[in-house]
Amino acid sequence: LSTHVVIIAGGAGTRFWPGGRRRRPKQLLPITSDRTMLAETLERCAGLAPPEDTWIVTNAAQREATGAEASHVPEEQLIGEPLMRNTAAAIGLAAGLIARRDPEAIMIVLPADHAIRPASTFVNTFKAAAHRAERTDVLLTVGIRPRGPATGYGYIEMGDHVATVAGYPVHRVNRFKEKPDAATAAEFLSSGDYLWNSGMFVWRVATLLAAFDRHLPGHAELLREIVGEIGAGRPAPEELYARFEKVPIDIGILEKADNVEVIPAVFEWDDVGSWLALNRLRERDDSGNVVAAKHVGIDTSGCILVARDDHLVATLGVEDLIVVQTPDATLICAKDRAQEVRRLVALMGEEGLEEYL
Amino acid sequence: LSTHVVIIAGGAGTRFWPGGRRRRPKQLLPITSDRTMLAETLERCAGLAPPEDTWIVTNAAQREATGAEASHVPEEQLIGEPLMRNTAAAIGLAAGLIARRDPEAIMIVLPADHAIRPASTFVNTFKAAAHRAERTDVLLTVGIRPRGPATGYGYIEMGDHVATVAGYPVHRVNRFKEKPDAATAAEFLSSGDYLWNSGMFVWRVATLLAAFDRHLPGHAELLREIVGEIGAGRPAPEELYARFEKVPIDIGILEKADNVEVIPAVFEWDDVGSWLALNRLRERDDSGNVVAAKHVGIDTSGCILVARDDHLVATLGVEDLIVVQTPDATLICAKDRAQEVRRLVALMGEEGLEEYL
Repeated sequence: LSTHVVIIAGGAGTRFWPGGRRRRPKQLLPITSDRTMLAETLERCAGLAPPEDTWIVTNAAQREATGAEASHVPEEQLIGEPLMRNTAAAIGLAAGLIARRDPEAIMIVLPADHAIRPASTFVNTFKAAAHRAERTDVLLTVGIRPRGPATGYGYIEMGDHVATVAGYPVHRVNRFKEKPDAATAAEFLSSGDYLWNSGMFVWRVATLLAAFDRHLPGHAELLREIVGEIGAGRPAPEELYARFEKVPIDIGILEKADNVEVIPAVFEWDDVGSWLALNRLRERDDSGNVVAAKHVGIDTSGCILVARDDHLVATLGVEDLIVVQTPDATLICAKDRAQEVRRLVALMGEEGLEEYL
Repeated sequence: LSTHVVIIAGGAGTRFWPGGRRRRPKQLLPITSDRTMLAETLERCAGLAPPEDTWIVTNAAQREATGAEASHVPEEQLIGEPLMRNTAAAIGLAAGLIARRDPEAIMIVLPADHAIRPASTFVNTFKAAAHRAERTDVLLTVGIRPRGPATGYGYIEMGDHVATVAGYPVHRVNRFKEKPDAATAAEFLSSGDYLWNSGMFVWRVATLLAAFDRHLPGHAELLREIVGEIGAGRPAPEELYARFEKVPIDIGILEKADNVEVIPAVFEWDDVGSWLALNRLRERDDSGNVVAAKHVGIDTSGCILVARDDHLVATLGVEDLIVVQTPDATLICAKDRAQEVRRLVALMGEEGLEEYL
């Protein structure tokens, strides 16, 4: 069976403003290193599928910039959705297009904007998952061991241990749980039975499309029409796309299906939720600063400093700040307020500063 | 008698980095308003002398940029010193050049980079000083009533009240005092007899040149040679300039002379010593921010934000910061460390960041 990798590269970039903009979301930014997150994701996936079996689903506005980071991916496998209709539509469309080539193909779905290491463990985990999907009629996810009682993730309740593949234990999934409150998150953490839902999936295309038929028949019908149009050499029609219900695949399919399994990840994983993630993902200097800029400083500690090209950031007597400098905008943010950058971006919209979004 | 205004526009700009650079010192920056300090100084002086009697002494490297801000000042009255040899040389050269036209002229000497208001009180004060200088053989200064026990200024000890001109009292000067320690500064403040030395002077050219002959004869001789060269249409020779002792006029002449008088200023005066001065000189918003930038902020207070053109500064959860954004460098500085920006600039030199100075 052939194995295809589908990279989901959507996203709005608001949490990484002013680095991230409408047309340059997180996956197109150099955050975890000096290369874009998409470039790092593609490199990591090279061990799972060749370029001719690699697909990227993005939106039409970001398609060109995305293609520039993925020049080895064939043009027709770079899918620019005319509208954003959440992950069930995006993943379903990729599945439909892959099925035209090979209905029995294995499909690995991965977000473009996660930080994962080491790549070798990542590849081995997904090879094991693909092996499992090849032989059974299941929908597999890879879940993350919680590092704390986070309330910002969905959770997966692991059930029985049903198999071990290449050393990786596979569990039945009992339930998907939406983002919990703090008390529930603490219970999940202490029970040891819950994993974070990372949005990484493995299945046979035929298995997924059967699940669409059963759980999201409206999607299934639209997907057949749209795939037909694309197969005839026409772009995905916006008016058909507009009819997709906006639903994530977790809720639309996985929560309803009874053939879902999970492999707990043993690689390091970070969803890089805000500039604060650089604290975890990049090297810090002796004063605890992450410096991705030309920098000179006196009495500067715990800061995250990002600037482009040869722009010099000079700091004096400051601590725990995030500074991000771009040609037309500069952010200065208290480190413990990084998750509120979205609010700032919303405020810009209200104040008529659209040109900076 | 004709009255000439001589504006001293030297300075290195390091305390206003990254706005100020080697070739763009404080007086060429828009600090107190959206116009440069030199432009504001020239406008303020228009009530004292016409352009044909206005002189600017700057250094050769800044002459072109200075001229761009002073297009109405005749080219030959824009003096670019080949070397910086402190104020005795600079003021003496202007005096020598003015004396070639009118040895009995009144000469008003003013720094280019002070904030003064209202202009009308300023003009009236210097008209009164000029009136006094016309009729007596004295060297006049205008001193500033101390606002606190500052240790960063030289002080002038007022003696007897010798005259009142147009309502302005004139006092004999007993002594000039170098920058005092904190205890002495407190004594000066409480005595009420001391003024800050602001570097603003009024005298007849003949009176000053006589003082050079008596107190700085080396300067006097060099000045005659250099003025002769310039009079013959040649530039001020660098090899002659190099022979000037580096001495301020206060120490070289005023401390030694016994014919010095002072008028206490009744206008508002600020020497704009660092970015922190914007707190005093510019309007603050409801959160105590001085905003000279396109800005969007959440929970931002007590900040000074400066950016050029349409660059957007976005702030979230920060207080008491100075942020200055320029095309090639950004400063982020704790407000109470503003006076240390010079240290940061020195550090840049040490770290090979010369291109940003």
